[in-house]
Amino acid sequence: MTLKLVSSNKCAGGFQKVFEHDSSELKCKMKFAVFLASEETDKCPVLYWLSGLTCSEQNFITNAGSQIPAAGTRDHASSLPITSPRSCDVDSGAVSWDLRTRAGHFGGGRPLDLDATNYRMYSYVTQELPKIINANFPSDPSRVSISGHSMGGHGALVCALKNPGKYKAVSAFAPICNPTQCPWGQKAFSSYLGNDRSAWEAYDATALAAAYSGPPLDVLIDQGREDQFLSAGQLLPDNLIAACSQKNLPVVFRLHEGYDHSYYFISSFMRDHMTHHAKFLTA
Amino acid sequence: MTLKLVSSNKCAGGFQKVFEHDSSELKCKMKFAVFLASEETDKCPVLYWLSGLTCSEQNFITNAGSQIPAAGTRDHASSLPITSPRSCDVDSGAVSWDLRTRAGHFGGGRPLDLDATNYRMYSYVTQELPKIINANFPSDPSRVSISGHSMGGHGALVCALKNPGKYKAVSAFAPICNPTQCPWGQKAFSSYLGNDRSAWEAYDATALAAAYSGPPLDVLIDQGREDQFLSAGQLLPDNLIAACSQKNLPVVFRLHEGYDHSYYFISSFMRDHMTHHAKFLTA
Repeated sequence: MTLKLVSSNKCAGGFQKVFEHDSSELKCKMKFAVFLASEETDKCPVLYWLSGLTCSEQNFITNAGSQIPAAGTRDHASSLPITSPRSCDVDSGAVSWDLRTRAGHFGGGRPLDLDATNYRMYSYVTQELPKIINANFPSDPSRVSISGHSMGGHGALVCALKNPGKYKAVSAFAPICNPTQCPWGQKAFSSYLGNDRSAWEAYDATALAAAYSGPPLDVLIDQGREDQFLSAGQLLPDNLIAACSQKNLPVVFRLHEGYDHSYYFISSFMRDHMTHHAKFLTA
Repeated sequence: MTLKLVSSNKCAGGFQKVFEHDSSELKCKMKFAVFLASEETDKCPVLYWLSGLTCSEQNFITNAGSQIPAAGTRDHASSLPITSPRSCDVDSGAVSWDLRTRAGHFGGGRPLDLDATNYRMYSYVTQELPKIINANFPSDPSRVSISGHSMGGHGALVCALKNPGKYKAVSAFAPICNPTQCPWGQKAFSSYLGNDRSAWEAYDATALAAAYSGPPLDVLIDQGREDQFLSAGQLLPDNLIAACSQKNLPVVFRLHEGYDHSYYFISSFMRDHMTHHAKFLTA
């Protein structure tokens, strides 16, 4: 497996790099970004980031303001490389923009992080990408956490809830929380997984939380109150909070007056998420 | 004069807004961005930002990470609205991308901030835009400073050096410092101003520094050592530093190992520039 360096820019004392490789799970070229807060060779924890549906790896690394707080956690966490995989064309049989993985002017994206016949993004995120990271960077596989935004926030929750103990913490910005119950999720699940609704629950964060059995998992969720997708019933955070409460999973849910679904919202609270992850990655 | 609100996003506790209006100086529609750190109505200082040649108002507000440090200066400076004007089509007679103001895939930009027959960007930046800001926002016209990047960094230096006392401080990221002596500047000046080189010096930061007469003006310049335009001889900061030294103008020039010309560089040091401006705007 060969990694091709696409770009490298010094930022906040470290380096923001983008790589490309051939994915064996997805049968296509994938890009991901890594921020290396220092050039030290001691093994460091890794925070994985999953961007939203219409985003490539570029949105996170140019708009989130993640590098300064990531570099700032070095005292606590050695350093926090952040990977944000970008998707590729996959024959998903989908016809509408929000199911395709490289959708014209939307500039790429990554729909639900699930495994289906022709689409194995869940395996890519939880298996293939970590193998690549661990083989090529000074990462500590025992200290890993995950975060994301919107559809990627749901992906982060699913990865953490389906793999108890694998991720030390999870956080999300404006995640889709209960896709089996919202229009976006129903359209995606029926396209990827067919009409058997029991198969859908294996990739639904709220259903996974309701069935969770494992070590404590601390969840941080930030949500803007003016988010158009919240009011449209696509996100449904209350359902996830209720499921977590029943399982005594500690959820910090913060509803922020005036904020929307954009990276202006994400950048405003990125430092808090870095602090959340650093706390558990260095415990 | 009517301002049209293009967008408004809550960010870092304030609001990042974009407006459009008909410019009387430029005879076209212009966009500019304003970050309002709070909704207070007390008059506050204003930091003007001039983006680089190929940039619109979007680059600064999405990539620079300016809002959090701007909001953070509220204790010192009440708040720091930041405007970053975007340019428009102007018949400049120019033929190549780096002289045009809306150049296809470069997505807009603003070349040299000068006044020529068909191009009055200097008057827009120093006169028309401040009038609009002061008429529509709670700004204090006596507390104003200016900053920018690359060609916009040169614009900031020119505006400050041509108007002693008008701007309380100036800073720049990787500015073009002596355009009469570099290929970019020579091409732009000959296109806009003709071949009379004495006319060029009225818009050359180094020539203006050498002739400066006025109150002390504190200059902060950050420059990446790996900046391709530095090694290509387009920026020439040494010439400006020498001219400032002869006039006892205090210049802090920081050359940063490993950094390039990009917004990764700008975002890394944005907080320092906010602190620099807040110091003089609240003195």
